[in-house]
Amino acid sequence: MTTSELYNSYREQMRRVADIKFSSALLQWDQETYLPVKAAAIRGQQIATLSELAHQLFTDEKLGSVLNELKQREDLAENDKKNVDLTFEDYTKNKKYSSEFVRKMSEQVNKTFHAWIEARKQDSFPVFENKLDTLIDLKKQETDILGYEKHPYNALLNEFEKGCTVDLLDKTFTGLLPSLKELLDRITKKEQVDNSFLKQHFPKQDQWSWGMHLIKKLNFDFNAGRQDISEHPFTINFSSTDVRITTRVDENNFSNMTWSCIHETGHALYEQGLPENQYGLPLGEAASLSMHESQSRLWENNVGRGLSFWRYYLPELQQYFPKQLGNVSLHTFYKGINKVEPSLIRTEADEVTYHFHVYIRYELEKRLIEGSIKTKDIPAFWNEQYKKYLGISAETDKKGCLQDIHWSHGSFGYFPTYSLGSFYAAQFYSFAKQNIAGLDDQLEHGKTENLLHWLRDNIHQYGRKYTSEELCSKITGKPLDIAEFMAYLLHKYTRIYNL
Amino acid sequence: MTTSELYNSYREQMRRVADIKFSSALLQWDQETYLPVKAAAIRGQQIATLSELAHQLFTDEKLGSVLNELKQREDLAENDKKNVDLTFEDYTKNKKYSSEFVRKMSEQVNKTFHAWIEARKQDSFPVFENKLDTLIDLKKQETDILGYEKHPYNALLNEFEKGCTVDLLDKTFTGLLPSLKELLDRITKKEQVDNSFLKQHFPKQDQWSWGMHLIKKLNFDFNAGRQDISEHPFTINFSSTDVRITTRVDENNFSNMTWSCIHETGHALYEQGLPENQYGLPLGEAASLSMHESQSRLWENNVGRGLSFWRYYLPELQQYFPKQLGNVSLHTFYKGINKVEPSLIRTEADEVTYHFHVYIRYELEKRLIEGSIKTKDIPAFWNEQYKKYLGISAETDKKGCLQDIHWSHGSFGYFPTYSLGSFYAAQFYSFAKQNIAGLDDQLEHGKTENLLHWLRDNIHQYGRKYTSEELCSKITGKPLDIAEFMAYLLHKYTRIYNL
Repeated sequence: MTTSELYNSYREQMRRVADIKFSSALLQWDQETYLPVKAAAIRGQQIATLSELAHQLFTDEKLGSVLNELKQREDLAENDKKNVDLTFEDYTKNKKYSSEFVRKMSEQVNKTFHAWIEARKQDSFPVFENKLDTLIDLKKQETDILGYEKHPYNALLNEFEKGCTVDLLDKTFTGLLPSLKELLDRITKKEQVDNSFLKQHFPKQDQWSWGMHLIKKLNFDFNAGRQDISEHPFTINFSSTDVRITTRVDENNFSNMTWSCIHETGHALYEQGLPENQYGLPLGEAASLSMHESQSRLWENNVGRGLSFWRYYLPELQQYFPKQLGNVSLHTFYKGINKVEPSLIRTEADEVTYHFHVYIRYELEKRLIEGSIKTKDIPAFWNEQYKKYLGISAETDKKGCLQDIHWSHGSFGYFPTYSLGSFYAAQFYSFAKQNIAGLDDQLEHGKTENLLHWLRDNIHQYGRKYTSEELCSKITGKPLDIAEFMAYLLHKYTRIYNL
Repeated sequence: MTTSELYNSYREQMRRVADIKFSSALLQWDQETYLPVKAAAIRGQQIATLSELAHQLFTDEKLGSVLNELKQREDLAENDKKNVDLTFEDYTKNKKYSSEFVRKMSEQVNKTFHAWIEARKQDSFPVFENKLDTLIDLKKQETDILGYEKHPYNALLNEFEKGCTVDLLDKTFTGLLPSLKELLDRITKKEQVDNSFLKQHFPKQDQWSWGMHLIKKLNFDFNAGRQDISEHPFTINFSSTDVRITTRVDENNFSNMTWSCIHETGHALYEQGLPENQYGLPLGEAASLSMHESQSRLWENNVGRGLSFWRYYLPELQQYFPKQLGNVSLHTFYKGINKVEPSLIRTEADEVTYHFHVYIRYELEKRLIEGSIKTKDIPAFWNEQYKKYLGISAETDKKGCLQDIHWSHGSFGYFPTYSLGSFYAAQFYSFAKQNIAGLDDQLEHGKTENLLHWLRDNIHQYGRKYTSEELCSKITGKPLDIAEFMAYLLHKYTRIYNL
């Protein structure tokens, strides 16, 4: 076979795998948006069957031979070679899992997800504990299946962020937390910001219309995606031409929906910007989770909590909520949406305290996986850590250790990518401001196209061609530098709090 | 292996096939409700991949051996034996198709569906013609693959209605059409009924609320299903605990949505009443298309266009539309919703003229499949036949041969089951009235539970255990008798039109 024929055969097999994976993803999207309650169990089984099939197809020996053969060809184009190399890595890793294990995991995830929903309803961790415990056992088995150096949690971290380790994260957080704590202490000593205007009654339908208006103006392509309502906001895609985001509306808290819309739009713009002709191949996928998160956070925080952005959008927003916000000045609004205050819910946390939330989850997961803490001890550990770092603790599990969907999905090792995403975002945004002439002025006029194009050119178009660190160096000339993030925070909050 | 182990292995294989088929069905549901426009092509490909997989799995030799072995076991329970026999029939039929043909068909159906959407937008049959022509060629190939006696169209009819033939339908329609024509002529000579109150402006949101209220009261289980909006109303299911119906709203035509809601609810009540523990097996599936249609039509027409039904529901409806319907009397309403008048759109036709619509499509399909008419001649034939039987013809293709979704789905041989459904419905309903004490009185009080239980007991619970004709004889003591349908029409319209 010619190299081109061989590559096409590889591509065709990958397309079939992607068709099944994306079908499974649609079943999941539906499960979290529109599924009738009685169908929960059967839906779980249907998703498990597709997961198992995708796994079988992706670990098929035929694909292995094609990959082995392609690895030896020297006339592959650069991008094609990258696809083959990355697929070979994925293939080798996936071969480690048995079909049985994949099915067991998928079924357990489903059970755990529904237990989480029920536990939240009853506001009771024990309702969740049993299923979660079995899932954690499976995750431990998974670390053995995957193999690791030094710490079993490294195996799981690596699933979400290639090359990420306990050593690296320990070092990063150790470097960051004291400065962050110092900043927080300086802020809490100052006169506190008033954000009570965010906690009036904002009717659901008006919030929905406003959110839809906003994400459209941010260039979310509604011909290649949609927004719906779910328990917990998320972004999911079934091709770069079908990228779906969800949101939730809290009528008594304006922040909840608006910044989740911007956040998920950041994710979606990345997915919609991936090359369509690389469907099912690594170069058609996002570089990493931290890179994904850098996009959502850049839009949510660096742009979407910025003064320039709201100089344009506040008057528009006031048209949607004249009674609630008509008399709020730009500076009051800007300060209010950037209020720093220790709080219980991660997704509602400000840019300073957010990373304590992540750190606590990271420490907890590390211990759960190494076995030094038991599942039943999660609530106690959780509350103790919140007390220690933020000086507060949850009265109820729903506002504590039941707040995140991640564990119910089996996603252990995911949380740290949120912080990494913020750090990358700060570094990228600082560089974007130097590179895009008049960016602030554009934002003040509601124009975000140039920023989007810059992200498309520098990040989105490459798919998984480069790792997070490679992209970071390529764009900013240096690897991730935590000082960039601290500089961003200091610059911003010095002005807001007159530090 | 014990018979029980063998049966479990069969059941497990069927469950996996069902998981994939129902996943594919969800992709189709999504395609017709929520899919972003740019995703059309990739969605088609994803559905094709799942169809192909389901076909591969269902025609797997391993399933064949298990079935062959089970056929020889004499200690199978009655229902289990029925499942095995029916699956063996399906298996043998499916083995006739190559995977390649299944994929080709699925892809062509997708292209044809999108061409139909586009052709309707442009109101132009030629936009549809090319894709449809290729699809018809594939359907002709399919008749050869399946094999047939006498007429190739029999092969396709048999797909939707086991045992249905051109001879049988010719005989049925030849028996029916003269009496139907005579009734129509007698009606058109009488003073015409006023239904102008149905053609006022009925706001979309109010119609939606009314429709949701109505189907809920008809015992559609929203914990095991949902209703959404689509171009063309349909019912689809992914288990008996997830049955979804769709509707469309025409703000200037009240009839459109209300009776499509009742019709699809009739289908859905059947699916929701199938035994859950027979998931993926023949006894968990509806008996046939005509039996499905007998359920939707019984609810839509025999119940939902009846005087007793509206004696209860009109006051409720008037609360939704006080301005439009507040002054309409029960008898004016009842006569109006039963107005008989030759018209262009099948789904909006009354109970008398409806069967001319079906007959014309039946004749057309028969000729297309035998090759005595070409695809390009469809509009001319269509209009000529409408002129002949109903005295009218469509000014535009959208109101003519582009009105139905069926051909774009590759469903040739489907239409006749609509008429058969009406005929069965009349026969069942006449018998239900004799069997359920005080049925009319119950309907006058908005109570339809007993009728539903009667249908569940006599039809739904059996799945595919009996054929349409077996069920008909079991319930009414005789096979399908067209005279029952004519008696129903005569009784009803003699009163409405003072014949």
